[in-house]
Amino acid sequence: MKKLLSSTIVLLLSLTGLSAQNQPPKAMTDYEKGSFPSETNVLRAEYPRVDPVTRKAYFKFHLPLAHTVTVNVGNDVYKGTRDIDGVWSIETDPLVVGFHYYFVNVDGARLTDPNSMSYFGYSVNAGGIEVPEGTEGDYYRFNKDVPHGQIRSIKYHSDINGTYRHINVYVPASYEKGKKRYPVLYLLHGMGENEFGWVDQGHVDFILDNMIAAGEAKEMIVVVMSGDIRTTPEIRSVRGKTVSDIYVDELVPFIDKNFRTLADREHRAMAGLSRGGGQTTTTVLTNHNMDKFAWIACLSGLFGINEENIDTVFGGALADPDAFNKQMRLFHISWGTEENGFRFEGSVAALKKKGINFVSYVSEGTAHEWLTWRRGFHDLAGKLFK
Amino acid sequence: MKKLLSSTIVLLLSLTGLSAQNQPPKAMTDYEKGSFPSETNVLRAEYPRVDPVTRKAYFKFHLPLAHTVTVNVGNDVYKGTRDIDGVWSIETDPLVVGFHYYFVNVDGARLTDPNSMSYFGYSVNAGGIEVPEGTEGDYYRFNKDVPHGQIRSIKYHSDINGTYRHINVYVPASYEKGKKRYPVLYLLHGMGENEFGWVDQGHVDFILDNMIAAGEAKEMIVVVMSGDIRTTPEIRSVRGKTVSDIYVDELVPFIDKNFRTLADREHRAMAGLSRGGGQTTTTVLTNHNMDKFAWIACLSGLFGINEENIDTVFGGALADPDAFNKQMRLFHISWGTEENGFRFEGSVAALKKKGINFVSYVSEGTAHEWLTWRRGFHDLAGKLFK
Repeated sequence: MKKLLSSTIVLLLSLTGLSAQNQPPKAMTDYEKGSFPSETNVLRAEYPRVDPVTRKAYFKFHLPLAHTVTVNVGNDVYKGTRDIDGVWSIETDPLVVGFHYYFVNVDGARLTDPNSMSYFGYSVNAGGIEVPEGTEGDYYRFNKDVPHGQIRSIKYHSDINGTYRHINVYVPASYEKGKKRYPVLYLLHGMGENEFGWVDQGHVDFILDNMIAAGEAKEMIVVVMSGDIRTTPEIRSVRGKTVSDIYVDELVPFIDKNFRTLADREHRAMAGLSRGGGQTTTTVLTNHNMDKFAWIACLSGLFGINEENIDTVFGGALADPDAFNKQMRLFHISWGTEENGFRFEGSVAALKKKGINFVSYVSEGTAHEWLTWRRGFHDLAGKLFK
Repeated sequence: MKKLLSSTIVLLLSLTGLSAQNQPPKAMTDYEKGSFPSETNVLRAEYPRVDPVTRKAYFKFHLPLAHTVTVNVGNDVYKGTRDIDGVWSIETDPLVVGFHYYFVNVDGARLTDPNSMSYFGYSVNAGGIEVPEGTEGDYYRFNKDVPHGQIRSIKYHSDINGTYRHINVYVPASYEKGKKRYPVLYLLHGMGENEFGWVDQGHVDFILDNMIAAGEAKEMIVVVMSGDIRTTPEIRSVRGKTVSDIYVDELVPFIDKNFRTLADREHRAMAGLSRGGGQTTTTVLTNHNMDKFAWIACLSGLFGINEENIDTVFGGALADPDAFNKQMRLFHISWGTEENGFRFEGSVAALKKKGINFVSYVSEGTAHEWLTWRRGFHDLAGKLFK
């Protein structure tokens, strides 16, 4: 294969001007002028831009050789228009406040915009935009006037995995200097995401910093973990074991050994969004681990329940409502009003009819997306361990 | 702008099959069969692949509509060839062991492969491959048989920045349970990289875990910081202040307040690679902060010195060799034999002639790239705080 060029001088030259790749001239049309660079952009990248009043996003790419350019924002596709200099412009519809994944599609290739910070979604490395609007979402923003916890990035060996696994662990601001022991929430992302989702997309650290400072949430440790079994490249599968086994047999003992936890079921919760909600009910209910977890939550993630199967679903855990209600301190269920395809209302109706205790939170005007989960987590965090 | 499709059902369907984007059929040619997926790939992505014997990398993209597809690996460009099904194949020359950035170029657009984990380089979000070879580099790999430290991800408010800054702080395995105080190394990335470079590309955590366990390095805290001033999107510049001010006026006091440090110059070091080496000499020497740091290192980053300017360069810090040698416990300089454009040999010759004490390490067969810096850090870590 032919090598076209190579030199350390070229490296220096190419590094110098590359603060923004494929970026167009900075001239903006009038309608873009109320916008500013998304906070998710890499340093100094002018696009994508977001408008906090219209909640539209603007993309520009200098791609004179491309034949078609579109952008996916979440699952919506927006077509680009090309000017005579080869700059493609894309304007979205008004977007829901908060975080959205995006891809740029060039002549049929679905690729990632290098000008965005990286957000793992759709099982790949995607771009992201953050749509602000007034004070909406102040609870998930960094606030310089409150004490801040840490996210501890930890790689530990897993016998089940056959390699190391990576977890992100939130500890509250008081953890470092004190002697106190804390309850622990085990928190899962959705399908196609990973253990960075609740941190980078969800801002779980900011939400808890703010709520703890305001006295709205109990201090807690949050183990932000991966819902996939990551193995060495040679293996890529683990025979006869699941992530639930990793959580219960390996991760919980690891956390209790290495952090100052309150190591009993009354102080241990599991929650997850979307598929992570399914992994939560599988781990705690179906796999009979209610002796280890007294608090569970499904954020857009209560699947597979209906009035017909309620006695047998989740390993029969819901068959005896009195026993269930006595054991579980909290069964928290949240979703957005625009998640029509998922029919969570039907699931909770079945729970209600059966007499299962639960608490629900419904996010107005949001779909299967991060604002639903930031809001849902905010509601959940105010109820955990109380 | 037209919205082409939108539905939560589409989301579910699209998530299901999307473990690898634009991925070709798995059939491999004979020469690819000794290869396996790069450890830097997202879960289940089959390409890029690396061959530990030939040290070649293989890329494949299913892009039937593209007219030209090339891949940049570092600064080398490799042309793709298209088969009748629209699968583009790219084979590299033999590569240096270790980590390399890459981009995929589709019809003139330099984009990021969503199938790679994200590595911030060239001031954008790039893909990466990791080339293994036998036991070369065992010192930078995860070893399940040694105790592991933590990387603490911390966001703190900076008055100079006007917003929060993010740092990654390595603490050794003994930190969490003990009462001990530790020396601190402040460590900087190169141009176009950020505070994740030394962790994700450099494996500084694995290197220190391994060396500390073997008794080859002193236990230390490493503050892995950003060399850019990241500001709010509205500002994007800070008048009259530099990152050096952030390090000395804000970061060192923050670290000494929040970690169990040995808070004096004898136990405080600064080091950086490439531009980070320049920021190190600027911060410690030019800005007269030798009262705060007694150990410095430039990894491919000693710039601007020659025999003519040695009395005036770095604010005159090198004019009096006796005074300099008395103050600095270590001046560590490292580079690779293939970095011809940088002429580090000339810089160290000038130091030598002047009588400045320094220790050098030269990496055989490597250029301005991560294997040079992993090796250089390995050598440096064995000499720090001793």
